[in-house]
Amino acid sequence: MVCMRIVIVAGGVGGARFLLGVRAAAPDADITAVVNTGDDVTLHGLRICPDLDSVMYTLGDGIDPVRGWGRRDESWVVKDELAAYGAEPTWFGLGDRDLATHLVRTRMLDAGYPLSEVTLALAQRWDPGVTLLPMSDQRVETHVVVSDPDTGRQRAVHFQEWWVRHRAALDAHAFVQVGVDDARPAPGVVEAFAAADAVLVAPSNPVVSVGTVLGVPGLREALLASPARVVGLSPVVDGAPLRGMADRCLSAIGVEVSAEGVGRHYGARSDGGLLDAWLVHETDTADVPGVDVRRVPLLMSDPPATQAMAQAALDAARG
Amino acid sequence: MVCMRIVIVAGGVGGARFLLGVRAAAPDADITAVVNTGDDVTLHGLRICPDLDSVMYTLGDGIDPVRGWGRRDESWVVKDELAAYGAEPTWFGLGDRDLATHLVRTRMLDAGYPLSEVTLALAQRWDPGVTLLPMSDQRVETHVVVSDPDTGRQRAVHFQEWWVRHRAALDAHAFVQVGVDDARPAPGVVEAFAAADAVLVAPSNPVVSVGTVLGVPGLREALLASPARVVGLSPVVDGAPLRGMADRCLSAIGVEVSAEGVGRHYGARSDGGLLDAWLVHETDTADVPGVDVRRVPLLMSDPPATQAMAQAALDAARG
Repeated sequence: MVCMRIVIVAGGVGGARFLLGVRAAAPDADITAVVNTGDDVTLHGLRICPDLDSVMYTLGDGIDPVRGWGRRDESWVVKDELAAYGAEPTWFGLGDRDLATHLVRTRMLDAGYPLSEVTLALAQRWDPGVTLLPMSDQRVETHVVVSDPDTGRQRAVHFQEWWVRHRAALDAHAFVQVGVDDARPAPGVVEAFAAADAVLVAPSNPVVSVGTVLGVPGLREALLASPARVVGLSPVVDGAPLRGMADRCLSAIGVEVSAEGVGRHYGARSDGGLLDAWLVHETDTADVPGVDVRRVPLLMSDPPATQAMAQAALDAARG
Repeated sequence: MVCMRIVIVAGGVGGARFLLGVRAAAPDADITAVVNTGDDVTLHGLRICPDLDSVMYTLGDGIDPVRGWGRRDESWVVKDELAAYGAEPTWFGLGDRDLATHLVRTRMLDAGYPLSEVTLALAQRWDPGVTLLPMSDQRVETHVVVSDPDTGRQRAVHFQEWWVRHRAALDAHAFVQVGVDDARPAPGVVEAFAAADAVLVAPSNPVVSVGTVLGVPGLREALLASPARVVGLSPVVDGAPLRGMADRCLSAIGVEVSAEGVGRHYGARSDGGLLDAWLVHETDTADVPGVDVRRVPLLMSDPPATQAMAQAALDAARG
């Protein structure tokens, strides 16, 4: 028997949890995660890939289960020391364990290894049971155009500064993918879509996670060329995002914060959009023309619920 | 009253303790430490200056009093994590608190600031009460020529690798100052010697600390041109170094491991050497032609003893 090949487009925390469910639902499958790197940031001279790390730590049982990001049993000695020097920004919560990951990554990147190889090397320690691919080896960073609260003038800030430092409180006028013109899908991404039996779009942020991945030139085309059915899962339940502040991102690009709004934003594959099927929460309704909309529990409240949700997505991928 | 201007040539742990004594003995003096940077090393992509940091932490009351180096209340989370990745050398003991210092330093060096300015910036936090100057802003690294224990062939290893990883157990054939030809004294060093009322050579390693500092082109000349008397303190007591493995270094360059041997190695200033006066431990004797040899307690066993020893050096500097 040839094992099932599943490709999942994922962001960070939500994508990581969903991947746990897929791994549980399809333990024999060959699973590839194509992960957003638009949130990546360089701080203290270290290259930080929050979404790749959330996925790696979650699948490798190293994630902090309470925060949902970063390392379990984390300490914050280096962060406190940097603050004592007063020389480095302190708004990004970089734990000591987490920092070691970024040190190794930065060393390898500085030595010339592409991010995809660095990611494989780091993942060896964590044995995630899933092939982790960055969306691209090229640096693509999401910047947010905001109005400066003091001057009122528009300026662009790094996504992490907007998201973490300002808690997305500044109105976003636009999201810009800095560097995207020179980006191409990381090695293995196009091949994974081409060989897939199922393509799942995780219930991640539709704008700054899924949208960023699909913004890499050639990646959306590779997904659309896949022989597999493409199944999306709504990150919006009952008019609100399940986690994070996706509503702030959706509003910024004029998309209604609803399962239907996101579904229509993705659009029917038969009509140039992404989706063959769209899973919305059992209490929601969504009319997305040309798309097989299914109502199933989407809360990821515990591992069995997450597994069942992944199973529903795999069922939808079978048609 | 114009305050007394004291310049001290110093290495790490011993130099740092001696500086504590000088600061206590001359609380109103203007004290400048010219510190060895030949032990500096880049590990995990971070620039580490062990001697500067030992001095800074010691004078800033941040030093670990038991180890004598590194930070008090230190933790080792990052080091353990790096080991778990198996990707970085683990023989250098880099604590979490200490690491933050190196992160800030590396960031500033990468931004183009010279080491002397970085050192001043870091020292602001620690308020050492002493002006800390690296011997040079240029990178000068001490490498040790050893016989490879497996092949028997000679090769050069970084001083830290020889000292920390091999505990100086490999026979040293020579010490090489990589980069020294392009080095010059850091800003302020020549001026400090020129304005000094007293120049003290700390009881630091005569080869890889004091010898390295004096190896910077122009620095020895600046010291010898000082109007002040130059007083050295023996790091060797009763035929053995007080700390560290200075005997391994002295043997390698053919200097007898004794207070007299080191005194003669430094030599009389009247004869092209360094010293006007040479302080040896009260139980030692030394005949160094042309040098005012004085026998005083040199053990630095507690702060009062260290202060008394510094006072003896200042007395000798007065002639």
